[in-house]
Amino acid sequence: MKKRYRNGKIWDFEHEIGELGNREVILGLDGGTTSTVCICMPIFPFSDSFPDPLPVLARAVAGCSNHNSVGETAARETLEQVMADALLKSGSNRSAVRAVCLSVSGVNHSTDELRILNWLREIFPSHVKLYVQNDAVAALASGTMGKLHGCVLIAGTGTIAFGFTEDGRQARAAGAGPVLGDWGSGYGIAAQALTAIVRAYDGRGPVTILSSNILQTLGLSSPDELIGWTYADPSWARIAALVPVVVSCAEAGDRVAHEILQDSVEELALSVKAVVQRLGLCGEDGKASFPLVMVGGVLEANKRWDIGKEVVNHISKSYPGVLPIHPKVEPAVGAALLGWNFLMTESHKEACKR
Amino acid sequence: MKKRYRNGKIWDFEHEIGELGNREVILGLDGGTTSTVCICMPIFPFSDSFPDPLPVLARAVAGCSNHNSVGETAARETLEQVMADALLKSGSNRSAVRAVCLSVSGVNHSTDELRILNWLREIFPSHVKLYVQNDAVAALASGTMGKLHGCVLIAGTGTIAFGFTEDGRQARAAGAGPVLGDWGSGYGIAAQALTAIVRAYDGRGPVTILSSNILQTLGLSSPDELIGWTYADPSWARIAALVPVVVSCAEAGDRVAHEILQDSVEELALSVKAVVQRLGLCGEDGKASFPLVMVGGVLEANKRWDIGKEVVNHISKSYPGVLPIHPKVEPAVGAALLGWNFLMTESHKEACKR
Repeated sequence: MKKRYRNGKIWDFEHEIGELGNREVILGLDGGTTSTVCICMPIFPFSDSFPDPLPVLARAVAGCSNHNSVGETAARETLEQVMADALLKSGSNRSAVRAVCLSVSGVNHSTDELRILNWLREIFPSHVKLYVQNDAVAALASGTMGKLHGCVLIAGTGTIAFGFTEDGRQARAAGAGPVLGDWGSGYGIAAQALTAIVRAYDGRGPVTILSSNILQTLGLSSPDELIGWTYADPSWARIAALVPVVVSCAEAGDRVAHEILQDSVEELALSVKAVVQRLGLCGEDGKASFPLVMVGGVLEANKRWDIGKEVVNHISKSYPGVLPIHPKVEPAVGAALLGWNFLMTESHKEACKR
Repeated sequence: MKKRYRNGKIWDFEHEIGELGNREVILGLDGGTTSTVCICMPIFPFSDSFPDPLPVLARAVAGCSNHNSVGETAARETLEQVMADALLKSGSNRSAVRAVCLSVSGVNHSTDELRILNWLREIFPSHVKLYVQNDAVAALASGTMGKLHGCVLIAGTGTIAFGFTEDGRQARAAGAGPVLGDWGSGYGIAAQALTAIVRAYDGRGPVTILSSNILQTLGLSSPDELIGWTYADPSWARIAALVPVVVSCAEAGDRVAHEILQDSVEELALSVKAVVQRLGLCGEDGKASFPLVMVGGVLEANKRWDIGKEVVNHISKSYPGVLPIHPKVEPAVGAALLGWNFLMTESHKEACKR
């Protein structure tokens, strides 16, 4: 396949950059349905520990780069622009880039991966190493500082558990969307709460303060109006946004809200346990330690009713070696660290061959 | 409000009709999202029992008349056309119509009812009695021969329980769609089955023959492909169409499929019990008899695993007076009988005043 090193207007700034522009860097990208973040990090030497704080040269933000959502052309343009912005801000040329690690939602098959690799190849010189991953991988790397080992649990609007062994095997659980059983997700929690309101209203379920609290939040006067509100807009995020109301009802002692959160905890723990079991992350005796990276609004510990903590408690009953990690860096930094790790591993292999 | 008796091209046939065209009739309509059926029935005298078979003069079928789905103009045209077809087939003029009873989906508020009444008023002379109802009401009437007493349970793609007392009180349960807990519906059953496939695949749930049987039905080679299939088309009916596969898996002894159907039975029974309880249809001692009209593909007794029968068994444990009825006539006939009943009641009241 013919490789073209694209040199469009977007890259005009490169003519202005002096010698410092050749300092070697890595680009890490986290491409989501809402926004795309690109981090530019200098290459630092291999050692047992990372510099603290991590030396981030620049951070750039752009819109959606999920090709399923905005189409291929727009996704490509967004990715190219956000990388150019990050390089411009850090005063670097493309030839200074050692590796690009792009972690993007909507990448589920090797065909998606290959297509995106080809776009990147048109933008960068041939010596630049390119890596494309599903967005769960950067989330894991953001907690393990770039090492692909352990499990990540993401629980925001949706939920997925994704795990890796040190020898490169991987497994996932959930992540199939609301129709196919992502019950522990933010959408799952909120949809159960809306259902509880309808069931209390028509006599199928117990009375709950979810009714008054959620109707008030939505500005509705009766549970009858919930039907129209629910189906007026197919966005899952709009429904998932009600999770904080469910949490506050549970904290106020509402039994229905409490049970919904408890079910969510069991579902999220089950996803992680399925991955750990299949990959044997817990060792033969079931007691080996493994990192569990926790990402997403549902798992953030900003409430007394702490879903993330309950999930870990639940998992630790089966797998006492679970080591929960709340990442201190964002997924784009995880992607950059992942790129750095890939690069070091490849360099090491090449050195051994020589 | 100014009333117009519309006389468009659609009604040209009326010029050709002779004296027989003045024989008094009733129109009953069942307007759904898939199709609209209009029945033309002669007026028969009031007696303790209906003629058997019922004297249906004509039946006409047209497309969707749910104004939420096709818009107001198209819905009106469909309704007018199907009524004209039924009158043409029966050789009747509009002036021969004593009453029109229209039972249509998408009618949830009195404002919907009033708007549709106004359309009908433009089509028919002022002496014609007009009745507009939610489609669950015609389904009930199709089982009770036009009498609004008892409960109807509809379980097709969606599900709803709707009940009436003899003194005119009404109550409903469920019918809020898949996001809001219509778990016993055809969609609910099939979505649970699809979920069971994903859960078996990723290690969260037990192995089930639903996997091979449903994937084969859909022409898919792996559970991974289910995600794409599920979200490619938002139609609930497409998913609900998998219910027969779930039933056959349960009949083959699959435990997962059996539990899904058992859950559905409990959910459907719960909807009926909520309505019966609220309306007191079971009497003070809980033992009074009341009709339960069963409508929709999920409740049809064409299988060894008979969901409808199980629902009745379940209800009868709480309310031994439940009298299940599988209607012998279609909902449009139920609507016509309902129209006849309304008309007789009004005539009786007027006669008493005189």
